[in-house]
Amino acid sequence: MRTSRFFLSTLKEAPSDAEIISHQLMLRAGMIKRLAGGIYTWMPIGLRVMRKVEKIVREEMDRSGAIELSMPAVQPAELWQESGRWDKYGPELLRCKDRHQRDFVIGPTHEEVITDVVRKEVKSYRQLPLHFYQVQVKFRDEIRPRFGIMRGREFLMKDGYSFHSSFADLQREYRNMFDTYTRIFTRLGLKFRAVAADTGSIGGTGSHEFHVLAESGEDALAYCPDSGFAANVELAEALAPSEPRAAASAALERVATPGRTRCEDVAALLALPLTRTVKAIAIVLTSATGASGQFALILLRGDHNLNEIKAQKTVGDFRFARDDEIQTALGCQPGYIGPLGVGALPVFADRSVAVMSDFVCGANEAGFHLVGVNFGRDLAEPAIIADLRNVIAGDPSPDGEGRLELCRGIEVGHIFQLRTKYAEALKCSFLDEGGHSRIMEMGCYGIGVTRIVGAAIEQGHDERGIVFPAAIAPFEVCIVPMGYAKSDAVKAAADALYAELTGAGIDVLLDDRNERPGVMFAEMELIGVPHRVVVGDRGLAQGKLEYKGRLDAESQMLPVAEVGQFLKGRLCAG
Amino acid sequence: MRTSRFFLSTLKEAPSDAEIISHQLMLRAGMIKRLAGGIYTWMPIGLRVMRKVEKIVREEMDRSGAIELSMPAVQPAELWQESGRWDKYGPELLRCKDRHQRDFVIGPTHEEVITDVVRKEVKSYRQLPLHFYQVQVKFRDEIRPRFGIMRGREFLMKDGYSFHSSFADLQREYRNMFDTYTRIFTRLGLKFRAVAADTGSIGGTGSHEFHVLAESGEDALAYCPDSGFAANVELAEALAPSEPRAAASAALERVATPGRTRCEDVAALLALPLTRTVKAIAIVLTSATGASGQFALILLRGDHNLNEIKAQKTVGDFRFARDDEIQTALGCQPGYIGPLGVGALPVFADRSVAVMSDFVCGANEAGFHLVGVNFGRDLAEPAIIADLRNVIAGDPSPDGEGRLELCRGIEVGHIFQLRTKYAEALKCSFLDEGGHSRIMEMGCYGIGVTRIVGAAIEQGHDERGIVFPAAIAPFEVCIVPMGYAKSDAVKAAADALYAELTGAGIDVLLDDRNERPGVMFAEMELIGVPHRVVVGDRGLAQGKLEYKGRLDAESQMLPVAEVGQFLKGRLCAG
Repeated sequence: MRTSRFFLSTLKEAPSDAEIISHQLMLRAGMIKRLAGGIYTWMPIGLRVMRKVEKIVREEMDRSGAIELSMPAVQPAELWQESGRWDKYGPELLRCKDRHQRDFVIGPTHEEVITDVVRKEVKSYRQLPLHFYQVQVKFRDEIRPRFGIMRGREFLMKDGYSFHSSFADLQREYRNMFDTYTRIFTRLGLKFRAVAADTGSIGGTGSHEFHVLAESGEDALAYCPDSGFAANVELAEALAPSEPRAAASAALERVATPGRTRCEDVAALLALPLTRTVKAIAIVLTSATGASGQFALILLRGDHNLNEIKAQKTVGDFRFARDDEIQTALGCQPGYIGPLGVGALPVFADRSVAVMSDFVCGANEAGFHLVGVNFGRDLAEPAIIADLRNVIAGDPSPDGEGRLELCRGIEVGHIFQLRTKYAEALKCSFLDEGGHSRIMEMGCYGIGVTRIVGAAIEQGHDERGIVFPAAIAPFEVCIVPMGYAKSDAVKAAADALYAELTGAGIDVLLDDRNERPGVMFAEMELIGVPHRVVVGDRGLAQGKLEYKGRLDAESQMLPVAEVGQFLKGRLCAG
Repeated sequence: MRTSRFFLSTLKEAPSDAEIISHQLMLRAGMIKRLAGGIYTWMPIGLRVMRKVEKIVREEMDRSGAIELSMPAVQPAELWQESGRWDKYGPELLRCKDRHQRDFVIGPTHEEVITDVVRKEVKSYRQLPLHFYQVQVKFRDEIRPRFGIMRGREFLMKDGYSFHSSFADLQREYRNMFDTYTRIFTRLGLKFRAVAADTGSIGGTGSHEFHVLAESGEDALAYCPDSGFAANVELAEALAPSEPRAAASAALERVATPGRTRCEDVAALLALPLTRTVKAIAIVLTSATGASGQFALILLRGDHNLNEIKAQKTVGDFRFARDDEIQTALGCQPGYIGPLGVGALPVFADRSVAVMSDFVCGANEAGFHLVGVNFGRDLAEPAIIADLRNVIAGDPSPDGEGRLELCRGIEVGHIFQLRTKYAEALKCSFLDEGGHSRIMEMGCYGIGVTRIVGAAIEQGHDERGIVFPAAIAPFEVCIVPMGYAKSDAVKAAADALYAELTGAGIDVLLDDRNERPGVMFAEMELIGVPHRVVVGDRGLAQGKLEYKGRLDAESQMLPVAEVGQFLKGRLCAG
């Protein structure tokens, strides 16, 4: 491609509403243009990147044995009613009525549609397994779209769905997809990590997320370099402390802690380690059944944080209590509450709390805490002890080998063992070898194509702009001639190199705009072209061209005849 | 591809609601599955065809210099309000509200969005011309979706939009697109015709349609083999007869024509040629301004048909009169009406009528016609004479050379000179060389990708199924082994040919299902694979394989070693 035939439109400054670096750089590089909140036009330079991601995803999906099809974006409400998600999905599901006032949705996902296809097509175990996938624009009406395309409303996804006659076969395909996704992210040239994950609202059991690693990632990931364990912090188990609880050695005492509402402040005031403090979190149970409206406490060690997903599994649905509810239940304002003297209120203690002795907690009296608190002596043993916290760096790995480290990631892929959730709701069955009707086992596998583009930029950028891996860069090489219109020698050398590289299947941008060198350099760096060749009269006089890799500190002069081979070598090596 | 790794699902009979052959065959071949009215899932075999069309379209668009981008499907209402189409588009525009109750549309077309992009990006004539295109799923809420994907609601389109600093430059790009479309349809391997077209509701001036020729086509096309003239019958001009009107020679006479309400019946009764009769069509003007509600007559020669688009241009908006309105205005029931004695009623006469003498028309009295009618003598000369009819075969070509022939086509592409319609509404301007702000000239160019698949089948089919051109067939070659699982020799020969052809970039389906030969043959013919090679022990014993082209009457035996080269030759030759 030549710049004169392409459309580049870069900005010196990013619009002020772009909060994160990938959003800023995508706007500055002219990759996307905002049409409405969370809705973007992919400009030519951005589309090139997206298409390269899409191509790698498609090639590896085809190689895996999955078969591509294409389902409609606009789906009839009936199927969503049949699966039960018409009511459950909430306002993220964009709904509309057609001219005949029939309800439709703009599909955010396609479990219902594919299950409908398969239940109509497949009758016998002989037709299984099947894995269909598509690459498709989806819409999810995010309440607060932000971060550009990272949390946009309209986005491109690869979504695949597999159908099986047995759980064992689902597990085989799940493993196949795990390997396929690993190949995809490896080919994309991104640093990534696969982690065990909570299945979230999509249902089913068994799932892994694939994260592009980046400090700005929304998700915290725990992994163990020794054992290979890796999980989303949402899911990573905090093992029960191996040491038993020490005996009580201090007397219970009420101490004044005016204005100290946080464990950190109390520990500092009392000159005690934060690990000696216990924080009480007031909640109200909201389960549809049982103890709805019941006030309760969750106890965590002062340096730990609540893991809401784990808590939900232990206590059921809940919300945090309001200040007035805390006042009513405990006669005390928030910041000084604790588990003593709470009568029959349910108390859920994290495993780490359950082994503490001589600890500090709120006194249920404004401005006071208790020290030297001990279970069994000063208050009842906690009724329910469970893993309720996020793991922290240094925690033992749940697989019993080594210690956990933490990093941050951006979720770009997710594989699920759905089992029979949708197949059951939509009666997707088959006849087994014995002629008996059975419900199919199902897996589903998603990759956020647009999100990968943003995540790649979060992972790869510097003060000059985007640093793309060659596999997904908008162009692999740029040729920047000094005086394309003025020097016949420059033009001839630039054109010859362009023809050679293009002929070798390399994606080259020849900047024939005759802009000032500084402008061309800055623009090629901003859009993340990994390899640059400068063609100038001075170098040509010595038979040389100037090469510089996107992250190189210095450029190097290469003999004209060797540049092509040099670049082919770099690009084949990745 | 091997059938064991693919998903084929064909039907012996088409569902009874499939009216046209392409719909029937697409369902039977398992190319599409209905999800809702006019909304289909593209199954793997169908998607392969669609993707091949898409690829050719994209390659030629890129070659033309147009630049691909991707605009959102979901568009904010504001832009449609700005262009005025929010009100004008009617119920074909699928509208919805997001969770914040803001209005959106599911884009059926993208003039507004692209004009918004360009008005924000382009400031100077130096940035022009620009041509952006995309290949995208669109939604049009057809009142009566039918004919499968031919008139579906969700469909894939290539839509391109060009922006220019002058009309001359728009005309240059328009010609470039005419040539590009011609290359696209040539490469697709379809018989097609480009015709001058009415611009319809999209606005602007100057447009051509590209039609795939098929007897079942919805559009009638007129063309002149001598001059190269071609136009949609909607638009093709019927020249004024070159012969002047003959002098009146017959006396006016009232004749009884009981029960004869059609010109054909009257001519037969009177033993006169149909070309001597005049039919009067009663209309009511409905223009927003002027003579709304006015009753009027249009006169056509008995063998001619009204061209509503031409009539609209001459008389303004109108509708056909109801029977009771005819009774009130003329005191006569329909079938016997005519232009005599109608007082001051407006009468619009087609050019062919204006030169008639001694003609036959209704007497405005039930059961009677008049013969020997002459303008000037029996009734006033028609106030307005215009081209109001469809051309017929044998009419002189409007360019003055040769005579017209007619054929039928399916519209699959349309190019428009939009001029400044949208640019003006959305204030899309640029600074010209003199620093003056001017509105851009615009073109738009569409290709119905999904529609092409249906049109190709309407053009190419026989009693055994689909006859695809090799360029868009789901597979170019099928290898059908007789006893793949039983004969090592058959398996080895089939696998070797598969490897050779696949290695040469040919798209091959190896049928390794071990079905009965008849089943495999029928299925490969149904889905339209153009070349078939049968591998059997009997042929192999003589060192031969059996080749049959999809339309060949007989198969032929070819030496094993020559089959690969033979097929490469066939496929390169198209």
